[in-house]
Amino acid sequence: MLDSDSLKRAQDQGKADHRQFQDIGYTRITDQIKKVPKGSVVLEDGSIIPGYPSIARIQALDPGLSKQFAGPFWAEEKMDGFNIRIFRHGEQVYALSRGGFICPFATDRMLDLLDEGIFQDHPDLVLCAELVGPDNPYLEGHSPQVQEDVGLFVFDMMEKNREGFLTQSRRMELLDQYALPRAEIFGRFTAGQRPEIADLILRLDEEGKEGLVLKPEDQGQRAKYVTGRSNTYDFSVTGQGLLDLPPEYFTNRLLRMGLFMAEHGQQQDHERLAELGHALMLGLFRGIDISRRQSRVGSLYRCRFNRRDSADAFIRHIEETGGDRVKVYKGMPKRQGDYWLLEFERVHQRMTGFLNQALQGGRQFD
Amino acid sequence: MLDSDSLKRAQDQGKADHRQFQDIGYTRITDQIKKVPKGSVVLEDGSIIPGYPSIARIQALDPGLSKQFAGPFWAEEKMDGFNIRIFRHGEQVYALSRGGFICPFATDRMLDLLDEGIFQDHPDLVLCAELVGPDNPYLEGHSPQVQEDVGLFVFDMMEKNREGFLTQSRRMELLDQYALPRAEIFGRFTAGQRPEIADLILRLDEEGKEGLVLKPEDQGQRAKYVTGRSNTYDFSVTGQGLLDLPPEYFTNRLLRMGLFMAEHGQQQDHERLAELGHALMLGLFRGIDISRRQSRVGSLYRCRFNRRDSADAFIRHIEETGGDRVKVYKGMPKRQGDYWLLEFERVHQRMTGFLNQALQGGRQFD
Repeated sequence: MLDSDSLKRAQDQGKADHRQFQDIGYTRITDQIKKVPKGSVVLEDGSIIPGYPSIARIQALDPGLSKQFAGPFWAEEKMDGFNIRIFRHGEQVYALSRGGFICPFATDRMLDLLDEGIFQDHPDLVLCAELVGPDNPYLEGHSPQVQEDVGLFVFDMMEKNREGFLTQSRRMELLDQYALPRAEIFGRFTAGQRPEIADLILRLDEEGKEGLVLKPEDQGQRAKYVTGRSNTYDFSVTGQGLLDLPPEYFTNRLLRMGLFMAEHGQQQDHERLAELGHALMLGLFRGIDISRRQSRVGSLYRCRFNRRDSADAFIRHIEETGGDRVKVYKGMPKRQGDYWLLEFERVHQRMTGFLNQALQGGRQFD
Repeated sequence: MLDSDSLKRAQDQGKADHRQFQDIGYTRITDQIKKVPKGSVVLEDGSIIPGYPSIARIQALDPGLSKQFAGPFWAEEKMDGFNIRIFRHGEQVYALSRGGFICPFATDRMLDLLDEGIFQDHPDLVLCAELVGPDNPYLEGHSPQVQEDVGLFVFDMMEKNREGFLTQSRRMELLDQYALPRAEIFGRFTAGQRPEIADLILRLDEEGKEGLVLKPEDQGQRAKYVTGRSNTYDFSVTGQGLLDLPPEYFTNRLLRMGLFMAEHGQQQDHERLAELGHALMLGLFRGIDISRRQSRVGSLYRCRFNRRDSADAFIRHIEETGGDRVKVYKGMPKRQGDYWLLEFERVHQRMTGFLNQALQGGRQFD
């Protein structure tokens, strides 16, 4: 879809970024070029792994479902983790981050998480999946299904050089045939089944899960709809970096929480409102405690690799992209059982400065 | 301090803005010029009413008090209302807003709120005061002392054409001599009295008051320190306009709340955390209710005037400065007892658009 001249021009215009990972050279598309979306990757043989598109959000089931879905749609669990695209090139399987980087961590761990046999039969297949769990190097917080290390949940399939996703039925067939780990598929619904969808989202909310992705039968506009408590949960895990996130991170979640509670008649739910207050302060209290004990406020990450050179490549990747914010602990990676363990910290620089100044009694102008 | 040439030049550079109010012409300084701060006003006779300076905030009494105050300081109540400067010119008393507009509302109401005799004896005096109460045209929320209409609380004094404030002792003398309404002065403290200041702020917090302004004996750097609950209160009254305030309005208050609770050992105070959750959702629920009943989400304001022409001038003022956001209700101002009542609404335009779209089931990209 992109000839080498176009690609060269795109690089000169800053819309494409050439990279090397081990033996594979690839070009990240950082800004849409013709019909090739941002996040796509062009391999050396010219084949393209399409970018994973953004999914719009609805904030009211009624009338959101009927407004967005004329026909039937599938409801699937929205996992809280990070989005990867898995593909085979030559003899190896790679995993791309949303931004189109080959992720040394996800690529290394595919070995444990996925039977790669599917790519023998379907070499052009691209699996879109969420990597979920506490031992992930990118995110604070995760879906409750994975309480240690990481797990893989396939939720979409694409093909190289082809727009759009495989159909729902084809995807479900392949998931079953290859027994792939997957995000839960709750079933097929129509907009008239708003009460069933409401029951489903309230159950996910009770279970501490993030929400739903609603997918029309085949191609067509999708929508996500998240639980109220996913907002509370996000506050509880990110509060110590409050000033290092865009402030809209917090205000948008407050809005979502309000709309969710109002739709589901929870305006008087004292316990849920109390949870919200606790969640908002939890991370701040943690940040204040850290700031009192040491000068630096950060969040700790840990993850495990099969191969030492993957860990080293990952360290180079986060140091390159995260700059001063990333502090890799001494002696890392270190051997732990069959794995190489990596522990590092992302420093919340604005929060560090603010809390130090405030707790040392400084004066601040608003 | 500013000759007419400098003033003319400042107007050409957009740093000064000439205005007319009834019989008085005046120039607002909108950007510091030499030593004349923003918010100052130059009258036709060349005399200057100095701007009211910002007061920096401390967020920890320990070690904030000892760090900021080498000598004794006075602790006074920080009122939750709007800041005015009151002065006499010719035979009339006027009130300026923080931005240097003569406020038709505050000017009209001085008659009821202040015995102007002090200006007979001290024609160059400028009283800095807070106008506080539910019937004010600018703010949602107010200190609990005033539960109807508005009240006046003098907290500083300046003189025309002179930098700085009158000394604490001189101000207290004049407050007593003229029996002026005032913000409460709790006494003189030193940094070693941190426990007494902590008790005082916790009492104010219980009483739903905003906080303290700490003023060194004479000139010198001041500091404000607010109660934890002032943040909760602000959330509860402003939430329906969440998207129309800067998002930092919310995140900064969360930070202040966290620092206050941590300093005063309230991290486990479940009731206070529950209050926070309630407060954050209260305004949103109100906004969602309004949005469901009518297309427009706004906040209602009401205030009363002695003179009809003041009300008319005030309407012109808010329509000029507030544009489309201001909707003055039909038939306003209307006679009510001895007053002219004005009711109007400030529309939360972004919140209106967002909630309408969300509640109608629209899709939104983050």
